[in-house]
Amino acid sequence: MSFSASVLTLYPEMFPGALGMSLAGRALEAGTWSLETVQIRDFATDRHRTVDDTPAGGGAGMVMRADVLARAIDHASPPSDRRPRLLMSPRGRPLTQQRVRELAAGPGAVILCGRFEGVDQRLIEARQLEEVSIGDYILSGGEPAALVLLDAVVRLLPGVMGNELSGEEESFEGGLLEHPHYTRPQEFEGRTIPEVLTSGNHARIAAWRRAQAKKLTRERRPDLLPEE
Amino acid sequence: MSFSASVLTLYPEMFPGALGMSLAGRALEAGTWSLETVQIRDFATDRHRTVDDTPAGGGAGMVMRADVLARAIDHASPPSDRRPRLLMSPRGRPLTQQRVRELAAGPGAVILCGRFEGVDQRLIEARQLEEVSIGDYILSGGEPAALVLLDAVVRLLPGVMGNELSGEEESFEGGLLEHPHYTRPQEFEGRTIPEVLTSGNHARIAAWRRAQAKKLTRERRPDLLPEE
Repeated sequence: MSFSASVLTLYPEMFPGALGMSLAGRALEAGTWSLETVQIRDFATDRHRTVDDTPAGGGAGMVMRADVLARAIDHASPPSDRRPRLLMSPRGRPLTQQRVRELAAGPGAVILCGRFEGVDQRLIEARQLEEVSIGDYILSGGEPAALVLLDAVVRLLPGVMGNELSGEEESFEGGLLEHPHYTRPQEFEGRTIPEVLTSGNHARIAAWRRAQAKKLTRERRPDLLPEE
Repeated sequence: MSFSASVLTLYPEMFPGALGMSLAGRALEAGTWSLETVQIRDFATDRHRTVDDTPAGGGAGMVMRADVLARAIDHASPPSDRRPRLLMSPRGRPLTQQRVRELAAGPGAVILCGRFEGVDQRLIEARQLEEVSIGDYILSGGEPAALVLLDAVVRLLPGVMGNELSGEEESFEGGLLEHPHYTRPQEFEGRTIPEVLTSGNHARIAAWRRAQAKKLTRERRPDLLPEE
């Protein structure tokens, strides 16, 4: 069974975007995953097709209406749907590689892209949306975040990556940032490849890489290191 | 002077993508920012247009060559170029809204999109690339990350957001996740808007929102809270 993504958005034309190219695009054509977009505006009921209104209590911006979004979600994801329902939002829990792996092992995802100031809280509670943040910065809407989440998930689907091994050693999979890489040419602008890497001594190479990964992680991301 | 982005990539067709639509797309048309893509492969010198090679020291995957990338960077960004040079990479420092604001206040950015296992370390050092990570997960390449970074930056450029106020109160700008939002209808599936928000008492509303924002941040992102 292939991974099935339904994206609810005011900008369906943003999809598949980069996901229609390269590895993800070939996997989409091959049926390894599928992508449906749902135009939220189609579920508005007034003649202006209104999807938002001013925030209760005042303040800047607009809030997406619970009733319109509920109709769009119920259309894309009936109660029997086993796929998790995600809301891309800077208020969400940060996306991790662990969560990406879980999603890739599941049946798919229903992804609601927030816009404007946000989404009516009652919709989030009534439809049990999982709020997901891709990072501590503000985007124009949930669409670029949904593209990133799907890109991370799709590359883990069976058969998508040419070299299956490639996924194993990467940053975060081992709890450390990845060690530095080098390749030919042997000399670049007077800089040479570290001698250990051309020594042919596999144990020394592994130890050097591990030490470099630890050093880099300590410098940049001490939060990732286990307590010592 | 407008914000000038140069993106170095093996997939120039992924740009502008979603950045050519909605707010960012209108700002691109209006000249508020500009986007140039550079095909890295054009800077290979062999007849197969090779941009990568096997990792020194062995291991899975391929590494992008320092010499090819250096030529691409030097073409897009001569030494006099004042724009920061970014490398999208999961090994980078996490992108923050603070860094997004700094970039938006500057002349632009040169953005190198990594692919495969990574980029030769000597290139990173020789061209003083700033490694930037958009989050703790692995993407198929730097392209989706570059789209996210540019989306975050472009929305802060002067004149891009219709409602300038809208940027002020958002998640991270105040160090807390944003409070819940509500809008009409007054009742949704038996759930009503919290009474305080329709009280008209602005001081009570502000206090309630602040308390809700603190509560949510404590639950989901205690790492964002100042030491108490």
